[in-house]
Amino acid sequence: MARAKLYGGIDLGGTKVEAAVVAAPAKVLGSARHPTPTKGGPPAVAETMTQAMREACAQAGVEPEALGGVGVGSPGIIDPQTGAVSSARNLSDWSGSFPLGTTLGQSLGTVVRVGNDVQVATDGEFEHGAGKPFHSVLGVFWGTGVGGGIVLSGKPWFGRGGAGEIGHVVVRIDGRRCPCGRRGCMEAYAGRAAMEARARRRLDEGEKTDLFKLMEKRGRTRMTSGIWQRALENGDKLAQEIIDEAIVALGAGVASVVNVLDVEAVILGGGLGVRFGQPYAERIAAAMHPHLFNDANPPAVLVAALGDLGGAIGASLLVRRGSSLR
Amino acid sequence: MARAKLYGGIDLGGTKVEAAVVAAPAKVLGSARHPTPTKGGPPAVAETMTQAMREACAQAGVEPEALGGVGVGSPGIIDPQTGAVSSARNLSDWSGSFPLGTTLGQSLGTVVRVGNDVQVATDGEFEHGAGKPFHSVLGVFWGTGVGGGIVLSGKPWFGRGGAGEIGHVVVRIDGRRCPCGRRGCMEAYAGRAAMEARARRRLDEGEKTDLFKLMEKRGRTRMTSGIWQRALENGDKLAQEIIDEAIVALGAGVASVVNVLDVEAVILGGGLGVRFGQPYAERIAAAMHPHLFNDANPPAVLVAALGDLGGAIGASLLVRRGSSLR
Repeated sequence: MARAKLYGGIDLGGTKVEAAVVAAPAKVLGSARHPTPTKGGPPAVAETMTQAMREACAQAGVEPEALGGVGVGSPGIIDPQTGAVSSARNLSDWSGSFPLGTTLGQSLGTVVRVGNDVQVATDGEFEHGAGKPFHSVLGVFWGTGVGGGIVLSGKPWFGRGGAGEIGHVVVRIDGRRCPCGRRGCMEAYAGRAAMEARARRRLDEGEKTDLFKLMEKRGRTRMTSGIWQRALENGDKLAQEIIDEAIVALGAGVASVVNVLDVEAVILGGGLGVRFGQPYAERIAAAMHPHLFNDANPPAVLVAALGDLGGAIGASLLVRRGSSLR
Repeated sequence: MARAKLYGGIDLGGTKVEAAVVAAPAKVLGSARHPTPTKGGPPAVAETMTQAMREACAQAGVEPEALGGVGVGSPGIIDPQTGAVSSARNLSDWSGSFPLGTTLGQSLGTVVRVGNDVQVATDGEFEHGAGKPFHSVLGVFWGTGVGGGIVLSGKPWFGRGGAGEIGHVVVRIDGRRCPCGRRGCMEAYAGRAAMEARARRRLDEGEKTDLFKLMEKRGRTRMTSGIWQRALENGDKLAQEIIDEAIVALGAGVASVVNVLDVEAVILGGGLGVRFGQPYAERIAAAMHPHLFNDANPPAVLVAALGDLGGAIGASLLVRRGSSLR
């Protein structure tokens, strides 16, 4: 019996690389995870991605060359034609352009397509996850930053290539400084990087918090979703205050986008979104409500359903559908 | 020689009804304007619309029955199938549902289709006005409120019927109260109704301004675009302050939407937008810039080109293309 075609997907994140071998529609036959190299620049990252994909293939019992192709979800500015990636924030030494698609294509011996990380993750949720019942969804990826993916009438919307920057919706004119350098962006209140910086300032000002002790105890250099969760469970007052403020900002910013796009559903993903889960999706929905123009008919607010491998599964759609996202 | 088909368009506004007879692509052969009745409820409004359309037809030398149909741009919640309109804000006694399409169809003896006023005006600009060179535009109608229309890849985007409410994008969490009852909406700072209410509060607090003297002198009951313009020309300090604040709000709110949709162009219409014109489009573009995530590639910001009859011309597209908008 001829075996059904298998596809690869790689999610390139700031902290980890996830690779998966996927059989249609969304069955994961093998997967591997590696920390994203913080030294060696783009070539080291490409090497790690190749390694992770090879391990996922070994687990699935398939040679990379036999895959129907590999899709990659990447941060940064992507040239969908060539798979070149430039200005990848959160990745070391990646300010210039690097031919990621070509490099991986050579090392894996198959077709590689590169798309925007948030958009492919939204697309994965739309096709196979929490977005399945809907035609139009907004993906909200609440992690280091706040990213957005848009699917309208079943099709990803890219604009001129830069659509979906919901983290930089302004929720407070002249508000807090955002890691992007602008003022008052939703991400300045809700992004994990901004939240960590805020916690540090408050600590320096003499505030009591266990957030940094938890980081030390776990040997982390960043304030991960798990650390925030533990601090909240411990009743850490500063953690609660900062998270409350993040939810107010997410409520206003996401409601603004819903007022404009009137999508059927909001899918909450990202490190914080997935870890905090449905109770926080409900808190965000409640924070959106006072700002929804059509508040009699709010969108569904649901947690991403594909879990940690959602980005990789979404990336595999880039080659399964034969088209490039962004 | 057989005469080319003519179409009617009616723009139903809070202060005036504009009717036009249009020959493809966008040639106006006749037009008429009437004040919107403030008494008599929906039947009186329908009667005035019929009258205006008859006058436009007389000017164009055509019987209403000979038109290829009449399109109507209306405020409120519209049932595109039946042409029923409910909850039309700014219109007197129009909280319930009224069969506007059916009523006009009977009085004019032709097919009538009803669409959302802002969306048909955006569509008109997209097809025949300032939006012609682009595939994706955001219409920003700066008047009594701030309305938005969206065209993506050549097609109007309605969401679930309520898309485009850009006036209710939140620009300041816990900010000023909006006429819609919510807090911090862009319209709370930039809508003419909100601006007039603010001017009145400041006057009551003892502030000096000529805005109300100008209203009296012109025998107006509302602070029209013309009054704001004259006050600015006279160097009225309060008028300047309120308009400056409106522009800051428009900059943040419109930039937020551009960060999400990444459209090619923003078309500025509405009473204030058209009257203030290109210098103010440029001020708004400058106010957007600090909030644009992709600030190296800002969208074009252009003034609506079809003038006072843009709404009526856009409405005529409802019947010229045979489909209903919203």
